[in-house]
Amino acid sequence: MSAEPNSDLPLPPGFRAGGMAAGIKRFGPDLGILVADEATPIHAAFTRNSLLGAHIPVCREHLTQSHGHARAVVVNSGNANCATGREGIANARRICTMAARVLDCPTHEVLSISTGVIGAQLPIGRILDALPELCSRARDGGGGEFARAIMTTDTVPKFATANRGDVRVTGIAKGAGMVHPNLATMLAFLLTDASPGDDLARTSGSILERSFHRLTIDGDTSPNDTVLFWHGATPDGVVDDALLHVSQDLCRQIAADGEGATRSVTIEVRGAVSSSQATDVGRAIGTSLLTKTAIAGRDPNWGRILSAAGQTATFDATRARVWIGDVDVYREGEPLPQNENEASQHLRESTAVCLGVDLAIGGESADVWTCDLTRDYVSINADYRS
Amino acid sequence: MSAEPNSDLPLPPGFRAGGMAAGIKRFGPDLGILVADEATPIHAAFTRNSLLGAHIPVCREHLTQSHGHARAVVVNSGNANCATGREGIANARRICTMAARVLDCPTHEVLSISTGVIGAQLPIGRILDALPELCSRARDGGGGEFARAIMTTDTVPKFATANRGDVRVTGIAKGAGMVHPNLATMLAFLLTDASPGDDLARTSGSILERSFHRLTIDGDTSPNDTVLFWHGATPDGVVDDALLHVSQDLCRQIAADGEGATRSVTIEVRGAVSSSQATDVGRAIGTSLLTKTAIAGRDPNWGRILSAAGQTATFDATRARVWIGDVDVYREGEPLPQNENEASQHLRESTAVCLGVDLAIGGESADVWTCDLTRDYVSINADYRS
Repeated sequence: MSAEPNSDLPLPPGFRAGGMAAGIKRFGPDLGILVADEATPIHAAFTRNSLLGAHIPVCREHLTQSHGHARAVVVNSGNANCATGREGIANARRICTMAARVLDCPTHEVLSISTGVIGAQLPIGRILDALPELCSRARDGGGGEFARAIMTTDTVPKFATANRGDVRVTGIAKGAGMVHPNLATMLAFLLTDASPGDDLARTSGSILERSFHRLTIDGDTSPNDTVLFWHGATPDGVVDDALLHVSQDLCRQIAADGEGATRSVTIEVRGAVSSSQATDVGRAIGTSLLTKTAIAGRDPNWGRILSAAGQTATFDATRARVWIGDVDVYREGEPLPQNENEASQHLRESTAVCLGVDLAIGGESADVWTCDLTRDYVSINADYRS
Repeated sequence: MSAEPNSDLPLPPGFRAGGMAAGIKRFGPDLGILVADEATPIHAAFTRNSLLGAHIPVCREHLTQSHGHARAVVVNSGNANCATGREGIANARRICTMAARVLDCPTHEVLSISTGVIGAQLPIGRILDALPELCSRARDGGGGEFARAIMTTDTVPKFATANRGDVRVTGIAKGAGMVHPNLATMLAFLLTDASPGDDLARTSGSILERSFHRLTIDGDTSPNDTVLFWHGATPDGVVDDALLHVSQDLCRQIAADGEGATRSVTIEVRGAVSSSQATDVGRAIGTSLLTKTAIAGRDPNWGRILSAAGQTATFDATRARVWIGDVDVYREGEPLPQNENEASQHLRESTAVCLGVDLAIGGESADVWTCDLTRDYVSINADYRS
């Protein structure tokens, strides 16, 4: 799924994208843009963190003024423009104003989004200087350049596409750390040339609930998390299932590229009383350091999985079941040590690990995506600013 | 505060303790006992995890039968006797029965507690064989031997004492990983010769709320967590403040000995609307991997602290304040980069780090104790069973 640096990632008709190095990061591309040929409907979901990146109030204001339409989205990596006070808000506005001038559209039809380190002011001069060239670089096949420009600690760009009849869905995301649903945990851009259904907010919410809300890397919810659903004008575009497919695909890509991760993990929760309980249990397992370090050690330590589930939901552990890969390792209150070798083998040999728990108290289920926790995660995050 | 292996740790009058190697672990002492001269009032608080160590239902049954009194508590390390089915429950009973026979008391006056790896059966034969010798070793000054016998990944034994007038409080605890309040996180034994007040459960609950519930190492709540408050018969013993002092002291010791930790961390939360909100925010900061890895890297990355707070409580981040050591690093929506050097120095030079956040929405506060997260934590837990 990773894009070759210079390969073309096709976007839905009516959208263009680009990316370039503006000198925000020490190396590499760090400024990207998505452009729609005309102002088209867009829905934004933002972090539930009380601390908000400066771009979020500015985005909200612009979306209100534009009645939920946009011409362009500018994204920088390397700096979150968060906890940066009045200057940070002013800088977010400056980016929109400059891009709108270049694109010849109202300022409120431009959104600006930032990701990176918290608490430092943007190098705003460099960004404003770069915007004219960035806008001119935007092209039909430029999704890969955009995907690379928005990466922070990501090691690969992340995108997915789906077609339904004549219309296309393209998703592009970033995220490798500070990733925990609520809302999500990263930046994600879902583009389609299909016109939105009757209730864009409700559709988007339902897709979020079944995709980015079920993803966790480290339990830390970023103050900058943003997901955009951006639609075109092609009528008769029933693309909900394609949006969901693309969103879940991006979740798996983010989990696989978790900071320091050597294993992506799909946590299957079954037998819950509700979908939200199943999700909560999956998230508890997915944030359990002991479960995540055990996977890093290829140790089928199912006691930690069951303990993490028990920390979150009330159920009778003597009726529960735990599996790793294809084998049960705990069933009806009893360990099944004879199956641990096969479970170990799954952890050693598969880079996409699967494990699960059946709470045996209901009929609802959820899958949650995460990754293992390695010494490298600690190294990456102990040294991030230095 | 660490006990020399053979030093005497004095217990309150009326209590004896001992420890020995019974062969549960590959090396070192792994079986300990606390004995009261006569059956005296005891209050137990157990984990809130749905998964319960086998000792917990047996303890509850015995405490009901004894109307909250006990003669002896037997503790093994190296094996949690958890998720071990009917055989596990039977083994917990066998330990109580054998100790009661040796001590010549009713079985329900003995409690058995286990800590260690989940999902393996106890080597019950070795434990039963060792009990007669263990009981004979119990002595007035044997608290240090007991403290060492209950260690798992702890690197030092943990105890604290306080005197109030003629009466004494002695606390002994273990815990270095799978430590997260709810209830606590570990085993702790609070002994005093003072008789309990009118409402032992209420007093104990209040002390727990202000001590062990405010401790987190890794966010994982153990299914075996147990805190015992054990009282003697000396009248007029108002020792609540001494119990609180000893409990908080043990919390700090457990935080300082967190698996792989190089820094203990006290998180001061101020300006919350309630004590429980303050505690929740402190726990969110104390479980934030990004905050904990930043401390391991000596990086005064206050954005991660503020972000963790914002993930949990609703407040206006532009009115909040964050400090590290003695200096503010964020105030009224603005970073204070000029103070970061001094904050860095605090992280580099102090092994007992202090940081805090003022939410500026109320007048309540809480301190929460944790530690940094290092590569060694991952190594310890990736390799725990291998």
